Amino acid sequence: MNYCSRCGHPVSQKIPQGDTRLRYVCDECEHIHYQNPRIIAGCLPIYEDKVLLCLRSIDPRSGYWTLPAGFLENGETTAMGALRETREEANANAEIVDIYTLFSLPHISQVYMFFRAKLLDLDFSAGEETDDVRLFGEDEVPWDQLAFPVITQTLKHYFTDRVDDNFPVRSMDIIIDRRR
Amino acid sequence: MNYCSRCGHPVSQKIPQGDTRLRYVCDECEHIHYQNPRIIAGCLPIYEDKVLLCLRSIDPRSGYWTLPAGFLENGETTAMGALRETREEANANAEIVDIYTLFSLPHISQVYMFFRAKLLDLDFSAGEETDDVRLFGEDEVPWDQLAFPVITQTLKHYFTDRVDDNFPVRSMDIIIDRRR
Repeated sequence: MNYCSRCGHPVSQKIPQGDTRLRYVCDECEHIHYQNPRIIAGCLPIYEDKVLLCLRSIDPRSGYWTLPAGFLENGETTAMGALRETREEANANAEIVDIYTLFSLPHISQVYMFFRAKLLDLDFSAGEETDDVRLFGEDEVPWDQLAFPVITQTLKHYFTDRVDDNFPVRSMDIIIDRRR
Repeated sequence: MNYCSRCGHPVSQKIPQGDTRLRYVCDECEHIHYQNPRIIAGCLPIYEDKVLLCLRSIDPRSGYWTLPAGFLENGETTAMGALRETREEANANAEIVDIYTLFSLPHISQVYMFFRAKLLDLDFSAGEETDDVRLFGEDEVPWDQLAFPVITQTLKHYFTDRVDDNFPVRSMDIIIDRRR
């Protein structure tokens, strides 16, 4: 951030009065530009005993399998965002069952939320950011070709919790030291 | 938003190629400025059979009681943010038990997350944005002087769930039509 989005003058990093953190503050109008973590909302779409995964056609992790998910937009509920991403990435018709996994990724200032969802029919296909969409049984999941740790964790919890048909919400942190 | 934070030139609202939503796009460098919902993380601090509430000294809802909560900062997990706010607003020492309530408030593009927390001692006091901090039993909660619907909902669920000592995560949407 170099310039004030309100008046166009340069900004500097300062700790505003009453604050404890460096913020970008306008040198001219003193507007404080807060920067906050973003939410990624997604679905774990289930059809009978299979889960739906999307093959990413874009970076990061192009060529790896993921659950449909993406940045929550202003004006959306988390469930609305999760269903929209499922429609955009997999052209899939799904219905929210319940919130399931939550992940904090502080090193990239992201919070992921996955909902268990019921895939309503087999009318799905690859969306714009996707090369392929398929259903996978537990024995078919490409575990070594999953795009992100949050995907692996969500799928592992699902197949474990499914045994007892009990799906408590799982809240986890994924801590990575980026300097290594 | 009037100016590009990267190059300082004016921005216009456009739908970028491959997108479906209006974004602020720089007329000069074409940088797209995404705007996304923000997370408010907080605690429901419990001491024996009482809950800790803070009397707000700032707007919005100055003079009403709230749970300690505030905007999640970059680099924090949701639990870290919830504990930091508990320290800042109530000078309280608490320990996270588990995630408890989640709320989407799409009309203001916010997502609230409250954690059940154990208040570790009685050494608490009003922080900068707080006029008073007190413990309340179920019969003492000032139900008509609570600051926000998310506070009322979280407390109501807590006192109900406490009867069976079972606290499933509660995910809710608070939908308000602002035109009314």
